[in-house]
Amino acid sequence: MKRAFVFALFTAILAGGICSAQTSNASAPAFTAHPSPYNFPGVQYPRIEADSRVTFHFNAPNAQKVQVSIVNVPFDMVKGDDGVWTYTSEPQAPGYHNYWMLVDGAIVLDPGTNAFIGYGHMCNGFEVPDPGVDFYDLKDVPHGNVLIKNYFSKTSNSWRHIFVYTPPGYEANTSARYPVLYLQHGGGEDERVWIEMGRTNLILDNLIAQGKSKPMIVVMETSAVGSVTSLGPGAGAGAGARAGRAPAPGAGPGAGGGPAAGARGGAAAGRFSEMGKVYGQLMINDLIPWIDRNFRTLADKDHRAMAGLSMGGMMTSTVTLANLDKFANIGLFSGGSIAPDNPAVAPDPDAFKKKVKVLFVSCGSLERPAAAQANHDALEKIGIKSTFYVSPGTAHEWQTWRRSLHEFAPLLFR
Amino acid sequence: MKRAFVFALFTAILAGGICSAQTSNASAPAFTAHPSPYNFPGVQYPRIEADSRVTFHFNAPNAQKVQVSIVNVPFDMVKGDDGVWTYTSEPQAPGYHNYWMLVDGAIVLDPGTNAFIGYGHMCNGFEVPDPGVDFYDLKDVPHGNVLIKNYFSKTSNSWRHIFVYTPPGYEANTSARYPVLYLQHGGGEDERVWIEMGRTNLILDNLIAQGKSKPMIVVMETSAVGSVTSLGPGAGAGAGARAGRAPAPGAGPGAGGGPAAGARGGAAAGRFSEMGKVYGQLMINDLIPWIDRNFRTLADKDHRAMAGLSMGGMMTSTVTLANLDKFANIGLFSGGSIAPDNPAVAPDPDAFKKKVKVLFVSCGSLERPAAAQANHDALEKIGIKSTFYVSPGTAHEWQTWRRSLHEFAPLLFR
Repeated sequence: MKRAFVFALFTAILAGGICSAQTSNASAPAFTAHPSPYNFPGVQYPRIEADSRVTFHFNAPNAQKVQVSIVNVPFDMVKGDDGVWTYTSEPQAPGYHNYWMLVDGAIVLDPGTNAFIGYGHMCNGFEVPDPGVDFYDLKDVPHGNVLIKNYFSKTSNSWRHIFVYTPPGYEANTSARYPVLYLQHGGGEDERVWIEMGRTNLILDNLIAQGKSKPMIVVMETSAVGSVTSLGPGAGAGAGARAGRAPAPGAGPGAGGGPAAGARGGAAAGRFSEMGKVYGQLMINDLIPWIDRNFRTLADKDHRAMAGLSMGGMMTSTVTLANLDKFANIGLFSGGSIAPDNPAVAPDPDAFKKKVKVLFVSCGSLERPAAAQANHDALEKIGIKSTFYVSPGTAHEWQTWRRSLHEFAPLLFR
Repeated sequence: MKRAFVFALFTAILAGGICSAQTSNASAPAFTAHPSPYNFPGVQYPRIEADSRVTFHFNAPNAQKVQVSIVNVPFDMVKGDDGVWTYTSEPQAPGYHNYWMLVDGAIVLDPGTNAFIGYGHMCNGFEVPDPGVDFYDLKDVPHGNVLIKNYFSKTSNSWRHIFVYTPPGYEANTSARYPVLYLQHGGGEDERVWIEMGRTNLILDNLIAQGKSKPMIVVMETSAVGSVTSLGPGAGAGAGARAGRAPAPGAGPGAGGGPAAGARGGAAAGRFSEMGKVYGQLMINDLIPWIDRNFRTLADKDHRAMAGLSMGGMMTSTVTLANLDKFANIGLFSGGSIAPDNPAVAPDPDAFKKKVKVLFVSCGSLERPAAAQANHDALEKIGIKSTFYVSPGTAHEWQTWRRSLHEFAPLLFR
C-alpha cells in the first residue's frame, strides 16, 4: 500500500494536482520529455516531448525520402548531415498511437522500438501520458493473471491462440465461479491488442481493487477464422501451419510482401458480416463451451458479456443479437450499432429489454458521436435504455477504447 | 488422443517416414512450399520452398537498393518491373531464423509478418520445418499455462515483466509443489524469446505428456536491470517508464533511431559479468523469493535449476557458481562455461560434485563444439561429470536451443 501511495504521489506531482480521471489536461506541461516506453533500452526516439509533441529519428543515410506515418498520415522527415532523418509532430492526444516509417515509399518498421499488430500489419507504437489519469497504470494492487492458451476449434479445424484474464483471487478461491467478458479486437488486429495496447489486465486489476468492478474473466481471441493465428507461442507450430491451410478471410494485407496502408476499415461490410457469422458459430460451438469447461465460469447469459472495438463492435452486435439466449450484456466501442428496426428488436422491444441487462455504446468525441447519440435516443423512444459514453478529445484510437472498457466494466454483472 | 494420432500420422506422411527426432533430413523434400507460419493471413512471403530455400518479396518501387539480412548476413534482392524486390535463399537449416530488410541501407522490418526481439532490436522471423521432428509442435496433450506476470523489484526499483510456465495439473493439484527452472534469454533479447521462438511451453507439455520430464515451473525474465522492460502488458505503463529512468546496461542498440546491426555479442565481457552480478542480486533478493511466495514451489536448491542460451549461459554460470546453496542444476546452452580452475570448483572439486546434481553443456555442431568438449573432458578428469550435447547441423540459433532444452529438461529433478 505504501508503494501505491508513492505512485499516486508521483502522478500527482507530475500532473500538478489530481485531475478528473476522464479529462485530458492538455494546457500545461505535466511531464518531462522522455523516450517512448516501448523503446528498447538506450533508444531515445520516438521521444515524447513535454508538450506532447513527438520527435522521431531514423537513420537512413542513403534514402532519398523518409516519412513517418502517424496513425496512417505520412509526414516528411528532414535529413541531417549525419544521415539521420528527423521530424517533430504536432501535440498528440494522450494514449497509444500506431506509427510506421516510409523509406523511399516502402512501408517499414523502426526496429529500435517494439512492434504491435494494427492496420493488418505490424506497426510501431508510442505512448503519450495522460497526466492525472492512472486507471491503466501498473499499480501495487492485487494482480490477476494473463494466460496464453491454445484450444482446438472444430469449426475452424485448427488450434486457436487466445489470451484469458483471470481476476485476483481466482486461484485461491477454488470454489468461486466468475462471469465472463468476451472482448474483441478491431479490423486488421488480433487477440493481442486488448492486452498489449488496451491494458485490459491493468484496467480490471485497478477497477476490482477499488471495488468498482465485479471480478470477472476476460477472453480475447482473434475473429479471423480459417487459418491458424501466427503468433509465436505454438499457434503457428502445429500441423495446421504446415498443411498450407487457406488464408483467413480477415482484413489482412493483400498478396505480396508489402501490405497496403489503410487496410483498417477497408474490408467490405459484407465481409465483416460473413466474418461475424462464422466467428459467432466458432464462439457458440467451440470457444464458449471450452472456456466453460476449463475455467470456473458462471455459464449463463446473465453472467456472459461480449464487447468489441470498431469491427469488433460490429462482430459483437452480429453475434449477440443472433444469440440473446447466450449474452445479456453488450458493449459496442466505436463500432456496431443496434437500431430500433433491427429484427432482433423491432418485433418486440419489451422482450429485448428483458433479455439485455447492459447495453453500452461509446465512441471518441472526434469520431461520429452524433450518429451514435441519435441511435441511443431512438432506442430510448421505444423504451430501451442504453449507456452512451463519449471519450473527450480522442479519436478512433486506443485511448477511446481503454476509457470505454473502464466505463463499461463497472456496469457488468450487477 | 485421436487427434494426436492424426497429427502424428500427418507428420509421418509429410516426412515420408519417421526420422530420428534429432536428425534433420535435408536430402528429400518432405513438405510442400508454404508461407512462413508467422505471416499474416494472405501474406505469401517469406515462403518456405519445398527444398528449405526461402523466397522473400518486398514492395519498394522507389528504393535504389533492397537487401534481406538473414541471420545478420545481407543478400541483394532483385527489383521486378512491378517494383517488388525478390530473393530466394540457399536452403536453410530447420527451425526459427531471424531476418530483417535493408532499404537503401536502413535497417527496417517487413510489416507483413510478425516481429520478434533479437539482436537488440525487433526482427522478423521465419520457420523452416524439421520433418519428422515434433517435440516443439502444438499437440493434443495436456497443456500447461503460460502466465504474463509483473512483480516489483527493490533491486531495480521497478516493475519487472515476466513469463511463468506452470505445468499441466498445477491448478487442479492444489496441494502439490513443483521444482522451478529459471530460463534466460541471450544478448539483445528479452523475456519473450523462450516462449515466442523457444516454444518452452510446448516442449515441456510434450515431454511431460510422454513421462520424460518431471512437471516443473519455468520462469523467464529479462536480465537487463535498471530499466523497465518495454513490452506492452503494463510493464511500460508504470511510473518507472514515466520517470525517465536511466537506460539499462543491456546489449541494446546505440542512441538514435536506427540500431546497429550485429549488436549480439558486441557488448564487452566485463559488461556481461557486471550484468550477471546485478541480475544475480535481483534473482536472489527479489525474483526467487517472489516466485516462492506466489507459486507452489519446492523452494530448495535441489529443486531449483537455472539455464540460459549464449549470454544467458554466461549469466547462468555467473549466478549459479556464486550461489551453489541456491541452485543444484545448471544448463549452459551455447554460452558460459565452468572451467576446472574456476574458484568455485578448483579448491574442492568433490564439494562441487556433491552440490551440483545436473551440469549440462550444449552447443550446435556449427558452433565451437571442440572447446566445449575439451572443457567437458577437463572437468571429467577431476571427477566432475557433465552432460555434453551437440545439436547436429545447427548454428548459434534457436533450433540448437530448442533441442538443448529438450535434452536438458528430462535430466532435472530426478
